[in-house]
Amino acid sequence: MTTRKDYTRPLDIKHGRVDMGHGAGGRAAAQLIEEVFVKAFDNPYLRQGNDGAALAIPAGHRLVMATDAHVVSPLFFPGGDVGCLSVHGTINDVAMCGARPLYLTASFILEEGFPLAELKRIVDSMAAAAREAGVPVVTGDTKVVEKGKGDGVFISTTGLGVVPQGVDVGGANARPGDVILLSGTIGDHGVAVLSKRESLEFETTIASDTAALHTLVAAMLEAAPGGVRVLRDPTRGGLATTLNEIARQSGVGMLLDEAAIPVLPQVDAACELLGLDPLYVANEGKLVAVCAPEATEVVLAAMRAHPRGAAAVRIGSVTEDPHHFVQMATRFGGRRVVDWLSGEQLPRIC
Amino acid sequence: MTTRKDYTRPLDIKHGRVDMGHGAGGRAAAQLIEEVFVKAFDNPYLRQGNDGAALAIPAGHRLVMATDAHVVSPLFFPGGDVGCLSVHGTINDVAMCGARPLYLTASFILEEGFPLAELKRIVDSMAAAAREAGVPVVTGDTKVVEKGKGDGVFISTTGLGVVPQGVDVGGANARPGDVILLSGTIGDHGVAVLSKRESLEFETTIASDTAALHTLVAAMLEAAPGGVRVLRDPTRGGLATTLNEIARQSGVGMLLDEAAIPVLPQVDAACELLGLDPLYVANEGKLVAVCAPEATEVVLAAMRAHPRGAAAVRIGSVTEDPHHFVQMATRFGGRRVVDWLSGEQLPRIC
Repeated sequence: MTTRKDYTRPLDIKHGRVDMGHGAGGRAAAQLIEEVFVKAFDNPYLRQGNDGAALAIPAGHRLVMATDAHVVSPLFFPGGDVGCLSVHGTINDVAMCGARPLYLTASFILEEGFPLAELKRIVDSMAAAAREAGVPVVTGDTKVVEKGKGDGVFISTTGLGVVPQGVDVGGANARPGDVILLSGTIGDHGVAVLSKRESLEFETTIASDTAALHTLVAAMLEAAPGGVRVLRDPTRGGLATTLNEIARQSGVGMLLDEAAIPVLPQVDAACELLGLDPLYVANEGKLVAVCAPEATEVVLAAMRAHPRGAAAVRIGSVTEDPHHFVQMATRFGGRRVVDWLSGEQLPRIC
Repeated sequence: MTTRKDYTRPLDIKHGRVDMGHGAGGRAAAQLIEEVFVKAFDNPYLRQGNDGAALAIPAGHRLVMATDAHVVSPLFFPGGDVGCLSVHGTINDVAMCGARPLYLTASFILEEGFPLAELKRIVDSMAAAAREAGVPVVTGDTKVVEKGKGDGVFISTTGLGVVPQGVDVGGANARPGDVILLSGTIGDHGVAVLSKRESLEFETTIASDTAALHTLVAAMLEAAPGGVRVLRDPTRGGLATTLNEIARQSGVGMLLDEAAIPVLPQVDAACELLGLDPLYVANEGKLVAVCAPEATEVVLAAMRAHPRGAAAVRIGSVTEDPHHFVQMATRFGGRRVVDWLSGEQLPRIC
């Protein structure tokens, strides 16, 4: 019932393609795992070679787990690819809980016929991102689906982290009077992916901001352990949706200052052309922080001293509002409600 | 650029379908998460509503993480569905490391147009399996891909568990003279899925054995904490591939007794019809244990006293073999090498 292939010879990574045998759990799967995955991620946990990885955790800490499926299309885009994105995205979800990420797991759903060379490029990018972040991929899984039942590569990653003593960060912690900080420009990732997807050419290439933010978070928490109340990365749905989520969870309102929210001129121009509002466009290397007013300056200074927060700004404040509205003082002196993203703006952006 | 839908009204679970907006991270995504996922999985971790879940872990334990993508086709099969399978599969991977599973995460990749009623059925099945196992789904993620870029529902689950003191279970621990135990019949899951996929009718319905094995493992480890050296669930690739993996990892050989390996008569008949060898057919509720010879009887007794191990048997022993061959004494008095599954036998079986 199967085409017999010779899985005893080394993988032909240059010209080979993923076939159904690579997902069947036999010799072919073992070969793919060893020659592509283990080689790239190489670490003592993976080398245990068991169904799971045995891990050490410092005693007496609270743990955080976060998970994300990554289905970005196209797989490669200016500034990144699904591989590094899947590492950054989950590291950031762990970090936004105030935790220090320690370990990642990765599961791959590959489409039959996908070129092994592209898979290797993606896995190598993941491995490089994991190494740069200091967070190893400790165990994984690979499945293959028939051509036309997937879309190249989907990657689900799960992260495990520990929360330092004295840190209490969560979406329900914002209080009226708190200050809202943003670590940099918005919209870069979504516009970078979309411009590649639609083969749009802009005068300047817009690159995704995909990046791991855990060391930025660590610097902020070290500067003011009790002063950072909420952390969140405005990914799908963008800054607007993220702020609405926090407002609802905390039972507060927000007032933003439109003029203070940084958008790169080329992103702004691209959004205008595409009919997008940058407030709803996904970011993959930015964070929003809600801080106690007295901690604002020290947190902002810590952010600006870090390469990922060099352009950090104060964009508004938390208000009392029984409707939990996010409002914005516009450039023209007016005020408008910034609603949730209602449906899709940019599908498959991460 | 999008069809405007009204996401302020309750989801029409009976007639509705997944649309791209359900994956975009805005109001539609929040609605799907609340009305389908949170309602089913309801627990205090999920209700934290953050990017990850904060978890408590008993101090001084080693941790284990395991992850699995589930792409089984069809999604519903006799004895189970992708939902309960995704819970059992990852619980078992954690348990096979000798660990007690504590928490699960789940990430979903949904295909546009998938009926919400079927999604709810799958999620409810997952939630029931998690509840029955006592292992909550603490955080998750949902993505949507366009029609024709996925296949209904893919689910990646990750499990976190703790290893009890004194337990040292791993694929590299088998030693010559050790005894190989099997918890029950083989081939049930693979044949159940395939018969449904190919719309084959057998006289008796063959049901998947999908089940969580962590309480069986706990009973075995309690009976002989140091006597259980290797645990593994023979999923993709079947018993033959699993034993070859262990033989390679431990640098040993194995000698199996064909007559001792239990196969249900209807599974045997179906395999004959389909040209399959039950040794290579996936199981989802069975385990292989390699035990120290002196622990065999007490481990076997503990297995037989547990509903998931009632039919447990001794199927062979570990030998010294520089080639790491798994050999089998056949019913006819001969001996043959049981090789790895080379390519696919049954694609998308889990």
